[in-house]
Amino acid sequence: MREDLILASKSPRRRELLSQMGLRFAVCAVDVEECLGPGEAPADYACRVALDKARAGVAAIAATVHADLPVLGADTDVVVDGDILGKPADRAHALAMLRRLSNRTHQVYSAVAVVQRRDGVEQVRTQLAVTDVRFGVVTPEQAEAYWATGEPADKAGAYGIQGLGAAFVEDIRGSYSGVVGLPLFQTCEVLRAFGLDVLDRARTRDASPVRSRIQP
Amino acid sequence: MREDLILASKSPRRRELLSQMGLRFAVCAVDVEECLGPGEAPADYACRVALDKARAGVAAIAATVHADLPVLGADTDVVVDGDILGKPADRAHALAMLRRLSNRTHQVYSAVAVVQRRDGVEQVRTQLAVTDVRFGVVTPEQAEAYWATGEPADKAGAYGIQGLGAAFVEDIRGSYSGVVGLPLFQTCEVLRAFGLDVLDRARTRDASPVRSRIQP
Repeated sequence: MREDLILASKSPRRRELLSQMGLRFAVCAVDVEECLGPGEAPADYACRVALDKARAGVAAIAATVHADLPVLGADTDVVVDGDILGKPADRAHALAMLRRLSNRTHQVYSAVAVVQRRDGVEQVRTQLAVTDVRFGVVTPEQAEAYWATGEPADKAGAYGIQGLGAAFVEDIRGSYSGVVGLPLFQTCEVLRAFGLDVLDRARTRDASPVRSRIQP
Repeated sequence: MREDLILASKSPRRRELLSQMGLRFAVCAVDVEECLGPGEAPADYACRVALDKARAGVAAIAATVHADLPVLGADTDVVVDGDILGKPADRAHALAMLRRLSNRTHQVYSAVAVVQRRDGVEQVRTQLAVTDVRFGVVTPEQAEAYWATGEPADKAGAYGIQGLGAAFVEDIRGSYSGVVGLPLFQTCEVLRAFGLDVLDRARTRDASPVRSRIQP
């Protein structure tokens, strides 16, 4: 059976979240510049990067049998006092991030963009979920122990809510899946605009979603 | 290496959540009566049932080498207008529950209790997470399609937030893991009172938690 869409992302967590929705998809790894423009607000930035990824995916599949499928891009940013925290460069950087997130609320901006090019016409939709995440106190000893587990190294904001980082998260207000990397409620809404109903697909097929990988 | 604790639960989702915390545990399936007392509030009910499960676990391991380990019990209830929704009896029941949850906010009460008996002394701790879960509109067609996937059948409130049910969840306020079945922040706090620090354990061992099963 044919794929429902293309996921333009290298993130294993986004693959897992899309699989949770029972969708069939092919993965297309894209590289886009992720660089905040002067005066660009986090909300605009997240939507722009998600859209850039989706467009890069569209370009990558243009000459393949998948060319007319919807392509999904996403971007997730950890924001504190208006600053975007990226992935930590090293141990000291990670510890500084965790110290900054301790005992307060920060925001996670998670954008999803879908682009489809069909018969020369391009359709585009974007949605954003902003989630408040409240951390309990993170002691220096806990931050050190957490760094030693290896989990923070490749995570924006130096934590993963779907892993041991959950021990720090007292409370969230918004989208859990958005904090993980793809806001599912919003993703389903966007996909519906492309004629893709998640529940309808899920009931008309077996439980194991097919995934393939496109080498651009 | 020895287990950190005993999980008194049959729920595969609770096993997954405890594993996420990197803990080593043995599973002890317990059966306790889950029946709301007259005039009992949902918060009291959830804590009581969690504690009943932990105590049943303590009784089950009394004659084993695990007898002095902390035993964790948990209870999760979906509550709307003060009514506790259990697991659906059949298709019509599930559809009625989903209709009731559509386009509004309900609550999920998720309690964790830990009991440890050592040298004749019993130590007990309980914590509760109450989470607001807001559903978007669930159309009758979507409810039917969702039922047909098989997911709602064994879920309290007829949905699973960690599965396709995420498509309905617009927003949560509180503990995501609590809605799944075990509030992790609160669980870590409770375990700390028993000298069990999750991050400290995680860094001093390899990544794969050991699980065994106790046959009482």
